[in-house]
Amino acid sequence: MKRTDLAELGEFGLIERIKSKVTTSQPSTVYGIGDDAAVIDSGSHYTLISTDMLLEGIHFDLSYTPLRHLGYKSIAVNVSDIAAMNGIPKQVTVSIGLSNRFSVEAIDELYEGILSACKNYNIDLVGGDTTSSQSGLVISVTAIGEVAKEAVAYRKGAKANDVLCVTGDLGAAYFGLQILEREKQVFLENPNMKPDLIEHEYLVGRQLKPEGRTDVIHELKEKNVVPTSMIDVSDGLASEILHLSQHSGCGFSVFVDNLPIENKTLLMANEFKMSPITAVVNGGEDYELLMTISQQDYELVKSIPEITPIGFVTNEKNNILVTNSGEHVPITAQGWNHLTTQK
Amino acid sequence: MKRTDLAELGEFGLIERIKSKVTTSQPSTVYGIGDDAAVIDSGSHYTLISTDMLLEGIHFDLSYTPLRHLGYKSIAVNVSDIAAMNGIPKQVTVSIGLSNRFSVEAIDELYEGILSACKNYNIDLVGGDTTSSQSGLVISVTAIGEVAKEAVAYRKGAKANDVLCVTGDLGAAYFGLQILEREKQVFLENPNMKPDLIEHEYLVGRQLKPEGRTDVIHELKEKNVVPTSMIDVSDGLASEILHLSQHSGCGFSVFVDNLPIENKTLLMANEFKMSPITAVVNGGEDYELLMTISQQDYELVKSIPEITPIGFVTNEKNNILVTNSGEHVPITAQGWNHLTTQK
Repeated sequence: MKRTDLAELGEFGLIERIKSKVTTSQPSTVYGIGDDAAVIDSGSHYTLISTDMLLEGIHFDLSYTPLRHLGYKSIAVNVSDIAAMNGIPKQVTVSIGLSNRFSVEAIDELYEGILSACKNYNIDLVGGDTTSSQSGLVISVTAIGEVAKEAVAYRKGAKANDVLCVTGDLGAAYFGLQILEREKQVFLENPNMKPDLIEHEYLVGRQLKPEGRTDVIHELKEKNVVPTSMIDVSDGLASEILHLSQHSGCGFSVFVDNLPIENKTLLMANEFKMSPITAVVNGGEDYELLMTISQQDYELVKSIPEITPIGFVTNEKNNILVTNSGEHVPITAQGWNHLTTQK
Repeated sequence: MKRTDLAELGEFGLIERIKSKVTTSQPSTVYGIGDDAAVIDSGSHYTLISTDMLLEGIHFDLSYTPLRHLGYKSIAVNVSDIAAMNGIPKQVTVSIGLSNRFSVEAIDELYEGILSACKNYNIDLVGGDTTSSQSGLVISVTAIGEVAKEAVAYRKGAKANDVLCVTGDLGAAYFGLQILEREKQVFLENPNMKPDLIEHEYLVGRQLKPEGRTDVIHELKEKNVVPTSMIDVSDGLASEILHLSQHSGCGFSVFVDNLPIENKTLLMANEFKMSPITAVVNGGEDYELLMTISQQDYELVKSIPEITPIGFVTNEKNNILVTNSGEHVPITAQGWNHLTTQK
């Protein structure tokens, strides 16, 4: 019997392989595998379902991740997926696999974070599963959201001349992770050294405690604007642009000069002797929203301070970064691939 | 800082602890933590959400569990949870954590089982998450179902004199597991021995490839009968009766003579020199439905061959097994507790 390594396929290849075998037949299934959330017709509105699994050693390192923040993040990343469909999360289920090394107090801390996120995003925790785990901590969250039928935003739908916009700033979470990894090494080499994290609160906070941008979803609704396409930035800008390009059948031109990057991110890039653009394009976990807005709607959106225009949609097949000097650099797939290169 | 062992609380204690910290505020949240599925108001009907996490080494042993059956079972156990609310599953999401030791062909086999179950229960696979795992295989499934508002069945609602009924037969899955464990030991001691499983197809099949009883849900609907309370039998009859008792605030009398036990189960109990009643009461994974039916409705239900009356609801606080000789044995909590004693 043939044996093909998973690494040959990669995560996106595996998803495509599964997707190719799936057909849907329920009349209520509006959209299945392949976007940030599934879309189910609930009569008066669409119900959105998104799910994310976080595994110890892959998605988080408990040596520098406070359980409270981990709990918060496990909710926020699902909120981000619902927001990426232009929806508002309403309920979550949280399943956890635990080994006996966790105390009741540690689990309390994890749930403090989970419930703090639920309160912040006005979400109800309605269920889950608890089980023991022979190895590390496992967290699986499913978020249930709602969106008006006429307001759902898919990855498909971008059209030539639409304005490509992104919320917040990019690249900070990547450097937050680099700082945490560096301080961990310092600590392992000399346990008397105290980690120097407060100075880097912003960058570290972006990694440990990201936020889903439901605030922007509310603002778009107030302006009565529906993005023509949308995705959240979890795997780096390049990966997300390629998803929008593939689903919408169009190209993107992105201006490097326009990319929103915090000063702290630029300074840290300099300290790490790395290009901040590389962090923005191939880093990840910013959990901002990347969307396309029609020219007409852009007039309404440009007053929202959280939204920055970074490029536009083209009829070309290729996706390019336009540098300060006018150079055209192709955008290629270099998203984080958990199945081949682990974080 | 105080450190309390998880084992002190146990799984149900942990769930109670989490539940006590949770308040819900979304108007659409009808019922949250504490039943077989969460209940969400979708306008014309209720949406049911249930989720289960299966971890290698805890819930399954890949040395004797074919991946195809594991995939099937991961869907069936969630179908069972939706059925336990008197609902019909419509969609599922499946998240998997995989290590590189799995080949693409192995994952194909897992998904063959998942998709075979989806086809059988007429469910759409609409999403999920794929990630690498540093340790074993992790499967997390969320099922989305529907039930008419007037037809939802909770664990609460049983009333004195209602008839306690169960579907199918009990105890077989427990002995299926014993056979698999025995054959594994035989094989480990002598790798030339071929496992003798075909002879025990029924019992082993009940363990490896259980079914959720949506067939019974359809039959109840045809008869226009809504159980006054319902739960699925995943942790053994005792555990489930205690749940119904606690939620409904009533007691149960169960007649040992009436328990539906297959001949093959009785024979195997004899071979293992074990009481078949112990397997029924404290075993698990039968995934049958345990329900209470009003006296009036029972007249309509008794013609359904899959349903067996096994006792009745009382106004007492205690739950008892009535043996053949008329002896009263208290039903106590001995359900499988993954957090203290692992399967």
